[in-house]
Parts: sequence; structure tokens; C-alpha cells
Amino acid sequence: MSITKNEIKLIKSLAQKKGRQQERLFVVEGIKGIREFLDSEFVLYQLYATDAVFDAETRLISQKDLQRISALKTPNTAVAIFKIPNSKSVIKSSLVLALDDVRDPGNLGTIIRLCDWFGIDHLVCSLETVDCYNPKVIQATMGSLTRVQITYTDLEDYLEQSKLEIFGTFMEGNSIYSGALPEEGIIVMGNEANGISSKIERLVNKKIGIPRFGNLKATESLNVATATAIVLSAFKGQYY
Amino acid sequence: MSITKNEIKLIKSLAQKKGRQQERLFVVEGIKGIREFLDSEFVLYQLYATDAVFDAETRLISQKDLQRISALKTPNTAVAIFKIPNSKSVIKSSLVLALDDVRDPGNLGTIIRLCDWFGIDHLVCSLETVDCYNPKVIQATMGSLTRVQITYTDLEDYLEQSKLEIFGTFMEGNSIYSGALPEEGIIVMGNEANGISSKIERLVNKKIGIPRFGNLKATESLNVATATAIVLSAFKGQYY
Repeated sequence: MSITKNEIKLIKSLAQKKGRQQERLFVVEGIKGIREFLDSEFVLYQLYATDAVFDAETRLISQKDLQRISALKTPNTAVAIFKIPNSKSVIKSSLVLALDDVRDPGNLGTIIRLCDWFGIDHLVCSLETVDCYNPKVIQATMGSLTRVQITYTDLEDYLEQSKLEIFGTFMEGNSIYSGALPEEGIIVMGNEANGISSKIERLVNKKIGIPRFGNLKATESLNVATATAIVLSAFKGQYY
Repeated sequence: MSITKNEIKLIKSLAQKKGRQQERLFVVEGIKGIREFLDSEFVLYQLYATDAVFDAETRLISQKDLQRISALKTPNTAVAIFKIPNSKSVIKSSLVLALDDVRDPGNLGTIIRLCDWFGIDHLVCSLETVDCYNPKVIQATMGSLTRVQITYTDLEDYLEQSKLEIFGTFMEGNSIYSGALPEEGIIVMGNEANGISSKIERLVNKKIGIPRFGNLKATESLNVATATAIVLSAFKGQYY
């Protein structure tokens, strides 16, 4: 059966945050990514594919219809719609990563993969941080999204109520290499252009930073995803 | 004076590696990036701008002409052409980074910025590694290219002739956290899809790796730029 106009309309609406929030649904493309979501706790809403390659119930569609619903230039066999889970209350973790308004989908995707790699099972995002169900984030996470719990919340409130020590990354912070870092705590990473906002800065207990080794004229700053990689490695590497 | 057809043709040709190699020229866009190249050892060939914002000799052009020669959707005041310097012989450095066929311009750009940050003044690239004068690399390096010496060479020959210890990153390598790393050596990072090639692998003295902390189903691999950030931080952080 050919795909209906209403189906196309629904899927297109999920490209926008507003549509995703209204429908509580998001889109995953490609066989590998879809398999990872099928194997996770996420609940499938609808699965479209040009071939019967999944164990799950599949709506077989033509290549032409696939092109209609895909956001990719060269769509790859399948498009799936999953339900956005209800946000759980913040879980207790030893080491939490918190993002203060990270706006770039690619950066958030990389950061989610890093959480997965370094065993950070809880990522707390400010309400202004880019939506983790954004198609570009889904594409960049390569399934890590199924293994990292992400909570969007008022970051100021969350930090005020937390009993964990709060670390913030600043250009002038104490070197991450200069002393022992604890196994527990919250690490805050800031916005791409402005870093950590002043309302969050006042809640930070310890300012940390990645020292620059090159000459004084060196790169002014590292990309937030790259900086996150270095900081998580410094925290976790000590206890390997 | 309006821009000529030949000028447009020349600039467009520099978007391709073939054109850059024929002309020995490359393009930099945007005021900030151009300033960094003007302040460096690179030699200016021609500077086009809609305003006289530079100390260097500028060919003033209209916004319309700027749009004709720019590769950006919303060009920013200026386009400059610089000369590609003759490749110097490989300099002696204590810690060298070598790339075995890194293909993505964004990854190479990030890696050049990391070299700049961590004071790695010499980057050796295999001949198949993406060209560092590729416009996307120039855009991603934010001027770091002016401070890092990059040599394209037969990587196998270079490693065979080197007296430095050669470290290669592999999934199964010894943890970068498990022992002291030396101040001197060559660190090899591999291709995005295939890692380090077998002809280079046989020249590696020590296999190192970034251990995975998450569960067994975690992300299969880290992006090469992210992995480079973690590895350089581990090598340099010890001697901070």
C-alpha cells in the first residue's frame, strides 16, 4: 500500500522540535541505527522499509515512497518512528555531565557518544540545549542515545538542589592535570560561543580547565565536544 | 574595477585539489582567518574585500563580486588567496602526530587545532590524507594552520627512517591510562573507517588504545578527531 499524505505530513512534522513535542515521536533512519533502537527500551511506533530486514512488524514501501519520507539525500532502506519516553526523574549517578546551552546538534551527538564510551550514564541538559531527538543528533549518536539517560531540566534548579560537587570548565580554571579529580561530581560544559553562563557559574564549586601547551598565539578555544572528550578522559582515566 | 572572468575562474579552480596543486595557491575567507594568515609566514597572492579593513594591499570589490568568488552562502567581507609554501623537509620534534589516511576535512581541521593547542608543532600526513588547503579544512582550523607545520609524505618511508618510538592507536591496544607515556615519539592515528592500515601497523612499536568504560554494547569506536584529543591529552598532560 502506498504511503498516505497524512503519514508524510506526520513524518515531516517530526523534523521540527515543535512537531516532536506535540506528537511525542521521533525519527530514526538507516538499518543499523533502527536495530539499536529496536534492541533498546524505546517503543516502536511505525517502521517503514523497502525490504523485510527487521524482526519487527514492517510496513513495506517502494523506493519512491522511502524518498518521500526520508530527510536524507540518499535514503537507506528504512525509516522508523519511535515514541519519545516520558522523562524520568534525575537518577543518582556518581559522575554526571551537565550541558549549559549546547546548541549544535553535531556537538550534542558527539557528547552523547562520549558519555556512552566513558560510562557516564546520565546527561543533564539545560532547557535551551538542542533537542536530543533532533534528526542530526540521532544521526550523530550512532545508537548511543539508547544507552545514555538524558534529562532536560532547569539547570540552575538542578544544580542548586544537588549535593554533588560541581565542576565547571573555564579558560582560567585549574588544570585538569594538576591534581586528583574525584570519582563523584557534576561536570558542567558551556555554550559554544559564550561558555558557562553567569547564573550557572555562581553555582560552580571548582573551576577546571584544559591548559594550552602551544605558543601564546594558539587557538583561542577548543570545540565543546573536543573539550568534553579531554575532560571526561581526565576524570575517568585516573580510576581505570 | 569589476572582477574579471579569469579571476573568477582561477578562484573557482582552487576549490579542487588539482587546481591548488597546479597553481600552488589556496583560498582563505573571512576577516579573522585572513588576518591570521597575514600575520604568519604565508605569502599573500591577492586580497579581495568590500571594505579596506586590512593593512595589506586590497583589491576593493562590490558585494556582488564578492558573492561571485566566495564559496560561502553568506560571504563575509573578504576573500584572500595565499601561496602554498614549498614543503619543508620533516623537522625534528619531540612528539610528532602522524595521520594514516584521514579523509574527512572536518576531522583534519579539528586535529590541526588540537596540534596547535597541545604544542605539537609537526603533523605528518600520508599522501592519501585529505589536503590541508581544502577550503573546509581552512574553515575548520581557525588559523591554527599558520602555527602547525604539516608535511605530506609517504608515511611508510617516513616511519621506516625515523628513530623515534612509534605509537599506534588500536581498539585492542594497551590502555593510555595504564603507564607512563614518553615525551618523545610518533603517534599514528588511522583512517575513519579502517583504522591504521596493515603496512603501517607492522611499523608500530607500541599499540595503545582508549579503554571503554561503558557497558559492552557501547559505541564501537570514537571519531578519529575525538580520539586524537584524548590521546594527545594523555601524552602531554603527564608533563604539565
